[in-house]
Amino acid sequence: MSDISVDGDRLLMRLKELGNIGRDAGGRLVRLAGSDGDKLGRDLFVCWLSQAGLDVAVDRIGNIFGIWRPAGTEDCQPLMLGSHIDTVINAGIYDGCYGVVAGLEVIQALKAANFRPIRPIAVAAFTNEEGVRFAPDMMGSLVYARGLDVDAALSTVGTDGAILGEELKRIGYAGAEAPGFLKPFAYVELHIEQGPVLEREGIALGAVENLQGISWQRITVEGTANHAGTTPINMRADAGYGAARIIAYLRERARSSATPTVATVGCLELEPNAINVIPSRATLTVDLRDPFEHRLKEESGALGAFLEMLAREEQLLISVEQLAQSSPVAFNREIVQMIEGAAEKRGLTCRRMTSGAGHDAQMIAPIAPTAMIFVPSCGGISHNPAEYTSKADLVAGANVLMDVVRHISSQACI
Amino acid sequence: MSDISVDGDRLLMRLKELGNIGRDAGGRLVRLAGSDGDKLGRDLFVCWLSQAGLDVAVDRIGNIFGIWRPAGTEDCQPLMLGSHIDTVINAGIYDGCYGVVAGLEVIQALKAANFRPIRPIAVAAFTNEEGVRFAPDMMGSLVYARGLDVDAALSTVGTDGAILGEELKRIGYAGAEAPGFLKPFAYVELHIEQGPVLEREGIALGAVENLQGISWQRITVEGTANHAGTTPINMRADAGYGAARIIAYLRERARSSATPTVATVGCLELEPNAINVIPSRATLTVDLRDPFEHRLKEESGALGAFLEMLAREEQLLISVEQLAQSSPVAFNREIVQMIEGAAEKRGLTCRRMTSGAGHDAQMIAPIAPTAMIFVPSCGGISHNPAEYTSKADLVAGANVLMDVVRHISSQACI
Repeated sequence: MSDISVDGDRLLMRLKELGNIGRDAGGRLVRLAGSDGDKLGRDLFVCWLSQAGLDVAVDRIGNIFGIWRPAGTEDCQPLMLGSHIDTVINAGIYDGCYGVVAGLEVIQALKAANFRPIRPIAVAAFTNEEGVRFAPDMMGSLVYARGLDVDAALSTVGTDGAILGEELKRIGYAGAEAPGFLKPFAYVELHIEQGPVLEREGIALGAVENLQGISWQRITVEGTANHAGTTPINMRADAGYGAARIIAYLRERARSSATPTVATVGCLELEPNAINVIPSRATLTVDLRDPFEHRLKEESGALGAFLEMLAREEQLLISVEQLAQSSPVAFNREIVQMIEGAAEKRGLTCRRMTSGAGHDAQMIAPIAPTAMIFVPSCGGISHNPAEYTSKADLVAGANVLMDVVRHISSQACI
Repeated sequence: MSDISVDGDRLLMRLKELGNIGRDAGGRLVRLAGSDGDKLGRDLFVCWLSQAGLDVAVDRIGNIFGIWRPAGTEDCQPLMLGSHIDTVINAGIYDGCYGVVAGLEVIQALKAANFRPIRPIAVAAFTNEEGVRFAPDMMGSLVYARGLDVDAALSTVGTDGAILGEELKRIGYAGAEAPGFLKPFAYVELHIEQGPVLEREGIALGAVENLQGISWQRITVEGTANHAGTTPINMRADAGYGAARIIAYLRERARSSATPTVATVGCLELEPNAINVIPSRATLTVDLRDPFEHRLKEESGALGAFLEMLAREEQLLISVEQLAQSSPVAFNREIVQMIEGAAEKRGLTCRRMTSGAGHDAQMIAPIAPTAMIFVPSCGGISHNPAEYTSKADLVAGANVLMDVVRHISSQACI
């Protein structure tokens, strides 16, 4: 299977070229969905698709598809690759773009090698994966999989007051195709890990078998403001201490979990926030993730029980507000095994792993067998100009994607 | 000793009258040092002193003294009572004023009963105890005890840009006497507890045997910002978790202390303070108090050792900045015993206790045998319009003060 390889130089050159487009006056990479920068990135991608001889299609939500339809494959469902090219503010150049550029590269390498698939192969750039300007994130793939009505999505008002549908028209990417017009036979997304695991463990590739479910909660702890000097420890209802206990509890639970649970308290505010006053109120957020639905429920339940106990023990009033929730996604086992097999044949180390971040793949998973491939992120850093993956790792990931594509596009069923 | 009693009605009426003076447009009690409101309060107090037939003296820092000098006592050092009548913003009516009004009440009651002390008895209202407008707090008593140069104190610039010396001149309270002109034989300060202990324990009076030393520190915990989803728990350097561990550590240490240690984390801020980002930095304050110097040092040292251990364990950088520090004060044992004896004779419950807040008494302690008497604060609330002590408790405290005054002012030495 390893007689064909992608053109690593072209892959890198395109990532850099795309990464140079959509910079602001301060040099920051900012290609928010529907913006002028997004248009420039899209134009470049469409230009590459055309040069590669692919059919270009754009759907109503602005998702762009480059489709290779060799003669005789027209009646088969296409294998779809892809990711997104919109970015956060002050982004790195790999997040999303790597999966899109590598998808195109795989198709071009296979075309050049006269590979004959039995089905079309398409590469997709989904609209507004980042969700910075328009909520929710992963919007293009969500609409594509009919998880969100296209008209509702198009009427979304952005943080700057703009309407997504008008912005897509303005930049020339309000396409004609109905979202979902290509029903994928399977979907494979190549992405940087955006976490530290592969690098720390010295492993070249991740075969992503699932994606964490997320529960976001806001917890409000109410105690009693009192003088820090005159109130004995055992007469305090200290909201800040309550918050500290919650943070420590979440950490200990996650640390001893048998599943890859992560729990994070990212926001915390105290009132009155004065050096000599016992905090009367603490407001904190909990970001809880686990790849298994039952575990996520188990952890949410355990947190609830802990909060009840804590409130009783410390004379606090504790209330919880659910801010957001998404279910875990299990990817397709056969594709995960293909990824492992392809890595092994190329002599690359590989481990199964869980995606801790959200990706377009999770939206496509309900409508097609789906999996993801991760490559190492230097320092685990992403959403940051310091985001980096070595050329060797990028090329290795693209070659494994290509081998998986050859496999899937040669067979009648998975 | 209990054949004479104070006039409880007059005591209450004066507290209320003083409490109605210096209200802002919103009805809040605001008699900041050197302000127009302060002038009104001072004028009323001086009027009462004159009506009571006392000599009135004002020193250069604006401390006001009402002195009862019965014939034949002129050569003796005066027994001094007192507290302050300046307030915080939106204050209650008891903090400080109670000690001043009760001191006057005690003198008037003794005069009316033809009590013959062997030494003069003075009641003092010290300038700027609260320190809200001009720092430091307890300034008048500190200057009086020569702990701060009077000219330096007078040149203090307030939060509103005003200079204390000019403000005292403007309101007519830049006196002629040198601070310390009356060398007290002893000093006794009656005050509301400003904490919950007496009320919760159902005890009428506190014989205050010492006053906590205070250490204020700012701790900065530096970790690494990372994605809340993609960073496994064991690969995190979570500054927020570090802060939580510090809060929990301080609580557990204080809870198991053999001395009345209190530790409070009143301020805490996280960066970047985003729901899905592991905090890279936590800034928190520590207010640590103990009535014994060696224990305060012990606790500070233990905290330092804990922080080192925590930094190592959790891959954090932790730095500490000392913001303020004051030594504990031990009050005079004989006066404390007199307070206990007087309470017992009046059939009042009494416990020895530590002052968790700062008071003028701690400044006078270096120059004279000193102690304090506390009465219960409803709900432990102070620096708040809800500050409240029942008439019965206020009168009981004033009567015990009177009995202690009779005792001390009848003897040649303590």
